[in-house]
Amino acid sequence: MRATVIHAPKDIRVEDVPDPVVRQPTDAVVRVLRACICGSDLWAYRGESARQPGQRIGHEFLGVVEQAGTEVNGFAPGDLVVAPFVWSDGTCEYCAEGLQTSCPQGGFWGSVGSDGGQGEAVRVPFADGTLVKLPAEAASDDRLLTALLALSDVMGTGHHAAVGAGVRPGATVAVVGDGAVGLCGVLAAKRLGAERIIALGRHRVRTDIARGFGATDVVAERGEAAVAAVRELTGGHGAHAVIEAVGTEQSMRTAVGIARDGGAIGYVGVPHGSGIGLDLSVMFDRNIALRGGVAPVRAYIPELLPDVLDGTIDPSPVFDMTVGLGGVPQGYRAMDERTALKVLVKP
Amino acid sequence: MRATVIHAPKDIRVEDVPDPVVRQPTDAVVRVLRACICGSDLWAYRGESARQPGQRIGHEFLGVVEQAGTEVNGFAPGDLVVAPFVWSDGTCEYCAEGLQTSCPQGGFWGSVGSDGGQGEAVRVPFADGTLVKLPAEAASDDRLLTALLALSDVMGTGHHAAVGAGVRPGATVAVVGDGAVGLCGVLAAKRLGAERIIALGRHRVRTDIARGFGATDVVAERGEAAVAAVRELTGGHGAHAVIEAVGTEQSMRTAVGIARDGGAIGYVGVPHGSGIGLDLSVMFDRNIALRGGVAPVRAYIPELLPDVLDGTIDPSPVFDMTVGLGGVPQGYRAMDERTALKVLVKP
Repeated sequence: MRATVIHAPKDIRVEDVPDPVVRQPTDAVVRVLRACICGSDLWAYRGESARQPGQRIGHEFLGVVEQAGTEVNGFAPGDLVVAPFVWSDGTCEYCAEGLQTSCPQGGFWGSVGSDGGQGEAVRVPFADGTLVKLPAEAASDDRLLTALLALSDVMGTGHHAAVGAGVRPGATVAVVGDGAVGLCGVLAAKRLGAERIIALGRHRVRTDIARGFGATDVVAERGEAAVAAVRELTGGHGAHAVIEAVGTEQSMRTAVGIARDGGAIGYVGVPHGSGIGLDLSVMFDRNIALRGGVAPVRAYIPELLPDVLDGTIDPSPVFDMTVGLGGVPQGYRAMDERTALKVLVKP
Repeated sequence: MRATVIHAPKDIRVEDVPDPVVRQPTDAVVRVLRACICGSDLWAYRGESARQPGQRIGHEFLGVVEQAGTEVNGFAPGDLVVAPFVWSDGTCEYCAEGLQTSCPQGGFWGSVGSDGGQGEAVRVPFADGTLVKLPAEAASDDRLLTALLALSDVMGTGHHAAVGAGVRPGATVAVVGDGAVGLCGVLAAKRLGAERIIALGRHRVRTDIARGFGATDVVAERGEAAVAAVRELTGGHGAHAVIEAVGTEQSMRTAVGIARDGGAIGYVGVPHGSGIGLDLSVMFDRNIALRGGVAPVRAYIPELLPDVLDGTIDPSPVFDMTVGLGGVPQGYRAMDERTALKVLVKP
């Protein structure tokens, strides 16, 4: 089959690789219908996260089960399924409590020796613990399929941030980061009943999506000016719930600056300097909590899926460019140059 | 009157100062019956927190109302009262939601121009918002008076840490810090229903108090060895709720190391390097939350007071040395040299 491989920073290729097969009786092989490129893939693309030459890449996909091992009970060939961005055994105590990202047998698509999502097919370990079944009829609904793909990462990650930030009905929420995760954070905050949602961003295409997702205010300023603008919008207090969806020193500094005393920052931006932006003395004096991390999206899919199916939430607008498998390298370039927000891949 | 004054690092004196008087109609003057020295006073004593020469010091006291301004409604001369370690107006939105430490009109005893707790009397701004009445009969119960004094800071602060760490019935809790706050954290965790409480400490006097307060295990190791010991005690997982009551780089590093994936660190140690010990990448991968800060003890006194009065909790064992006002400098020396845990002052 063909799959995406990263050889070095900025060197993404689509190559012939061995077809995936069931190796363990708990494995399944999934033929990919939709995959995509994640903002966090760019850390590898830019060389800021190390990869071994030849590693696969891509951790978001949905598709159809092609083969299932003898110990796979929940799925049969032909089932339409979505995969969260980590696999997990579904049986350990972390999986039982909904923290599948801490499963000792879990792993990340594209790690050494495993398949990545940006390919024609994927060997899925622990299929029963990992995959979630989708209604078969969704396969013929292009828009819905795209919306469902967001459950593999960005929608669940935005939801994790909103939960971590303590979004409640009536809350004032501020969102740092206008990427797909930040935008899904807006959608998640709206879904959880936030009354006011302040999106920080200056790219019109993105802030328009934010408004469509429920943002009531947009702040185009950055840094100290952004902090001042959010404070002005909130009577000087700041937002009780802040979603941090970037992971840099600057974004975390802004998140702390716009948080209301006694509030919380829900952080899901993979830390790339954000620890430095975390001024613990300020947070201490103002009782600002920090809660989040790598999102256990597997735990959230059952909660979010019905709302995607019935159209209550539709994250599909975060995808603004579509490529075939051969176009994946071009998709990385577009996202790196911010000419695309999030690239959908149809293998 | 006589009161404690800090002139320079290690230069603590008891001097004649002007008698406090009611300046604002919302003020009261409280004659101090009991005060004490806080571990956080040592940051000033050691010169690690800046003070202007001549500032008062001490932020924990209880006593008897001597004068009350014309707009003080809740108190009259003769009332026995305890003060939290910050004053607050009792009317702003932060006070209303129980975050009195963020009251815009609030302040800290001993800040420039205000009285400190380690003196014969204190002018209390916003008496109605700040003070809490105690039963008059407590004045004649020496042990109870000492226990009630802990409500001014360490007991409420330990409780804040336990709440921040998410202590619930049945929880496994680990406590970093064997000072009075850490020990009160043990007591608070026990009160909140923790099943297992692991106290980190190596000083027998302190760990004996921890056991008396409900600690089920004591870990004497430090640093990496402490992390290994706590992990061994918890089946390799760590503690779901970690109380961090020190504030240094090392203590925070230990707190992160012993936290279970998906758990929380309730931090109340005034940050003195603890931000450096906070490895955000580790916290991100393991979904460890950080919640706490300066404790709004005023909010907790109404909840904790009945339990102190009826003996459900008795924090008085944290006081292991008693001095008169003249002995305060000696008390600082003893705490600085760790020959005393917490010094009670009877002016």
